[in-house]
Amino acid sequence: MMTEEIKIFSPATVANVACGFDVLGFCLDTIGDEMVIRKTEEKGIKITKIEGYDLPFEAEKNVAGVSALAMYDALQPDCGFEIEIYKKIKPGSGIGSSSASAAGSVFGMNELLGRPLDKTKLTYYAMKGEVLASQCEHADNLAPAIFGGFTLVKSASPLQILELPTPSDLFATLIHPQIEIKTSESRAILPKEIPLSNAITQWANVGSLVHALHTSDYDLIKDALHDVVIEPYRKQLIPHFDAVKTAALEAGALGCAISGSGPSIFMLSKSEATAKEVEKTIRNVYSTTDILFETYVSKINTEGIRVI
Amino acid sequence: MMTEEIKIFSPATVANVACGFDVLGFCLDTIGDEMVIRKTEEKGIKITKIEGYDLPFEAEKNVAGVSALAMYDALQPDCGFEIEIYKKIKPGSGIGSSSASAAGSVFGMNELLGRPLDKTKLTYYAMKGEVLASQCEHADNLAPAIFGGFTLVKSASPLQILELPTPSDLFATLIHPQIEIKTSESRAILPKEIPLSNAITQWANVGSLVHALHTSDYDLIKDALHDVVIEPYRKQLIPHFDAVKTAALEAGALGCAISGSGPSIFMLSKSEATAKEVEKTIRNVYSTTDILFETYVSKINTEGIRVI
Repeated sequence: MMTEEIKIFSPATVANVACGFDVLGFCLDTIGDEMVIRKTEEKGIKITKIEGYDLPFEAEKNVAGVSALAMYDALQPDCGFEIEIYKKIKPGSGIGSSSASAAGSVFGMNELLGRPLDKTKLTYYAMKGEVLASQCEHADNLAPAIFGGFTLVKSASPLQILELPTPSDLFATLIHPQIEIKTSESRAILPKEIPLSNAITQWANVGSLVHALHTSDYDLIKDALHDVVIEPYRKQLIPHFDAVKTAALEAGALGCAISGSGPSIFMLSKSEATAKEVEKTIRNVYSTTDILFETYVSKINTEGIRVI
Repeated sequence: MMTEEIKIFSPATVANVACGFDVLGFCLDTIGDEMVIRKTEEKGIKITKIEGYDLPFEAEKNVAGVSALAMYDALQPDCGFEIEIYKKIKPGSGIGSSSASAAGSVFGMNELLGRPLDKTKLTYYAMKGEVLASQCEHADNLAPAIFGGFTLVKSASPLQILELPTPSDLFATLIHPQIEIKTSESRAILPKEIPLSNAITQWANVGSLVHALHTSDYDLIKDALHDVVIEPYRKQLIPHFDAVKTAALEAGALGCAISGSGPSIFMLSKSEATAKEVEKTIRNVYSTTDILFETYVSKINTEGIRVI
């Protein structure tokens, strides 16, 4: 009887990274789900345990199950898989909760099968799970979860993912206000057309951020971490966004923007000490409100999902 | 009596580089103006000679004169300058003719004064000359002329210019159809608003191109050299654009797009041999028309303006 199983850490991620709406992302280290993937003699995909949050056990209705099924149907291995999910990332928090699940199952299965697939192919199957969560195939959270570090999704179809360098002294701070923003609402609030002048500013920032990551130029990271296209719309959905941003920048953060479609807000700082100082400051902002919140400080996880 | 003078080569440049409208540019090597800048005891700026094209001698009406005056007024040196312009780049060709003049005078003066200004400051004064030519301060041709290689204008105000790496085996091919496109017309044809989805494609390409230049990834350069925002409008002003592009790509070019606001069209290729093959092919396309044209092949000039 087969008993092969692995336990993995599937990290939270930050999509968009201020200027790079729909294309940029980076991987966190201190926040993530744990999952156990187990080979079974019985064929098929079964989700056998879910802890942390109330999610469906039927594989067809669970993002981890849907991505697993997509990969399973394509590879047709002569075994099945059981999946246990120990969910730590709250669904809807804007730090890639569904991506962690969708990426975790395919990563784990690939490990147990002797790695037949490369990371881009894993992302491809994980996208099938993302569809269930967000009604569209996107990879801006999946790519950093699977590749680690900073990633740029050059194109979704055909899927092309670039691994960008990570400056060694870069740390993230996050605040997750416990409010609910529907993905449909955060999509609907966006304009279909944007001023050409704003688009130019944004692609100058994207190009500058990529250059800054390559040259470990923290001043330029600071100059590039602006979002003139999406933030003016979406920040309306996040209470006290401007106060958090002002406080974070005053405390020394290089930049502050909405994580994915929110409600989480992320900051990047040079040095862990500054990232913690930033955390303290933004905790003060939210402590004066009646909204529950959590904060995190994390190095940039350059490895992505890992076996633990 | 002072007799100090220098002769310089002020190169043609390609702005926009397909995906990077208004921010990216690169510097050519085989096409450019020559200028002589001479210190004089008599104060002020005088243009004493212009060969090649019919341009105004009054400093206030000549781009080289206007940029020189802006720098001269700011520095207030205890000498004057004479400028001779041997114009090789046809005005209105879309390969930075006015930028070569505007950049050349300030570069030459700076050399003769012992280099009091850095390259960003030189670009700043050169922009004052550009205003005369294009009615707006932009630096996307000036930056590559002054810095060499590939440049990204992160912002025009305050002026911030990034020097991007140049892969060693990259060569440019250009075709300059002898038609006139008014800058005002090529600006007026552009939409004020663009679809968000196209903007996303464009900034994914800008980020990818910057990454590709850093990693000398020629395949990715090819994938990134697309312009979904500007080209669909401006190509209407350039006869046979689609035929040139198709032929160039078939001949092995990595990409083909409008140089600046046209009418010149540029291609980038891996290797000089391919760049020459591309030149031959696009000559064939235009030879069947009744439009006069010139073509060039050039390595990427990583030095920019130089003393000769």
